[in-house]
Amino acid sequence: MTTDSKPHKAPPATLLLVGTGLIGGSFALAAKAHGVFSRVVGTDRRTEALDAALELGIIDDRASDADESRFDAACIAVPLGGIASCVREASGIATVVFDVGSVKGSVIDALETPPENYVPCHPIAGSERHGPAAADAGLFSKRTVVMTPTATTAPWAVEEVRRFWEAVGADVETQTADQHDQRFALLSHLPHLVAVAFMDVVGRAGSFAGAGSGFRDFTRIAAGDAEVWHDILHSNAGHVRRYLDELIDDLRTLGDAAEKGGPSLHRRIEGASRLRRAFDAARD
Amino acid sequence: MTTDSKPHKAPPATLLLVGTGLIGGSFALAAKAHGVFSRVVGTDRRTEALDAALELGIIDDRASDADESRFDAACIAVPLGGIASCVREASGIATVVFDVGSVKGSVIDALETPPENYVPCHPIAGSERHGPAAADAGLFSKRTVVMTPTATTAPWAVEEVRRFWEAVGADVETQTADQHDQRFALLSHLPHLVAVAFMDVVGRAGSFAGAGSGFRDFTRIAAGDAEVWHDILHSNAGHVRRYLDELIDDLRTLGDAAEKGGPSLHRRIEGASRLRRAFDAARD
Repeated sequence: MTTDSKPHKAPPATLLLVGTGLIGGSFALAAKAHGVFSRVVGTDRRTEALDAALELGIIDDRASDADESRFDAACIAVPLGGIASCVREASGIATVVFDVGSVKGSVIDALETPPENYVPCHPIAGSERHGPAAADAGLFSKRTVVMTPTATTAPWAVEEVRRFWEAVGADVETQTADQHDQRFALLSHLPHLVAVAFMDVVGRAGSFAGAGSGFRDFTRIAAGDAEVWHDILHSNAGHVRRYLDELIDDLRTLGDAAEKGGPSLHRRIEGASRLRRAFDAARD
Repeated sequence: MTTDSKPHKAPPATLLLVGTGLIGGSFALAAKAHGVFSRVVGTDRRTEALDAALELGIIDDRASDADESRFDAACIAVPLGGIASCVREASGIATVVFDVGSVKGSVIDALETPPENYVPCHPIAGSERHGPAAADAGLFSKRTVVMTPTATTAPWAVEEVRRFWEAVGADVETQTADQHDQRFALLSHLPHLVAVAFMDVVGRAGSFAGAGSGFRDFTRIAAGDAEVWHDILHSNAGHVRRYLDELIDDLRTLGDAAEKGGPSLHRRIEGASRLRRAFDAARD
């Protein structure tokens, strides 16, 4: 069902932006700044967000007011639970469609036979801020975008969407959806779940007076949008659970080691410290 | 055993700095910059640290080379396990002695009858960096310092040490050692233990390629010095354990809620997000 012939497309090109929040808004700003699209038509089920996106210059027109009935590309930037139906709809009116959801398997599963012009994407970029006002044309510069093409995705669609991301400064990687979901269950979704649970405990204790910069950074992700994170944690619950059970085992043995003190406690703290410093060194 | 008569002391005053790392070094730099002391004499069991402190101008002289046998104050800035013996020794050669350890009860217990010129302190300031090279004269500006005077601490000693901290720009609070230790078990020591356990899980999974800014901030504290954190987690293991057990319960129920999805998951994420945003708002 795939084809190698790339549909003809010459600038000026028009983007349909479905969801005008942080990620979608940032993509639209960046793509226009880099000349990938000359016009952005937007839609958002939150009227205030759509109005703000128009006012901020993220979109040129509301989809409901626009003349177009076909688009060169569609960027689906809504919470995970809504992605599959938006992809299905957009695949009929846009040459190529991609989403920016943080979990890939659940969307692909929901589509059953994904359209050949759909390229699942996950830009590893974000912030605890959200909404059109948080959009930033530089958000994807030097960041990784993971693409997880399905068995039915056309190679020309993959190359077209790769071109968009590279134009806004991102490095593109390709993985299977399952590899991706397992990887980000550990690196992103589990930390979020832990930060939420920790804030629960803090909330019951009643005060964070005197909390320092360690607390601030450790809990920063917990400020994220509840709808977005509900969908992420639920969509990837299986992978997250496996790592969560591992973490709980580690927490128990580390709690025991703390009570006992001595070389085994020191070794574990030193190992974590070395690994974390290696992470910083790798980023420098 | 306490007295209200403050011993006579006129500038120029000399500080004995025991431990020349991040916190001790920063205090020495700040105190000299604000004219609290005109001379700093240092000691450190790590010869390289002591040499670096001299070279960086954190200390004016090594204690082994200095003429003084009495000091106006002593700042004990060594890992927790070494504080009590340093306090005992310094209390005989310095007018007033304070430490900067992150746990207070275990040090006070180890002293049995704490000297009347000893004021237990905990500046809520730090960084995952360590050593004299990380010292920063601005580290305590607008930060909180918690003092936990003991039953035997002299009021004049409390006021003298308060003056030091206020001079370097800190806000001073007073609590009992147990209140303090419980508070920081939750706000600082538990997050550290969790970040260490999480890095353990990441280490077994083998890679953090693609980790984003959420991962970076959530794990930053894990890069801390292993000896310092061994002593903190061990010294405060009782309070930490109680909150850890609470957190594990929360993690389990949140993992269940993630699998199920729906309002209860959304409510918990939203509650954490609201609380975390309140923390930011309170700091602005």
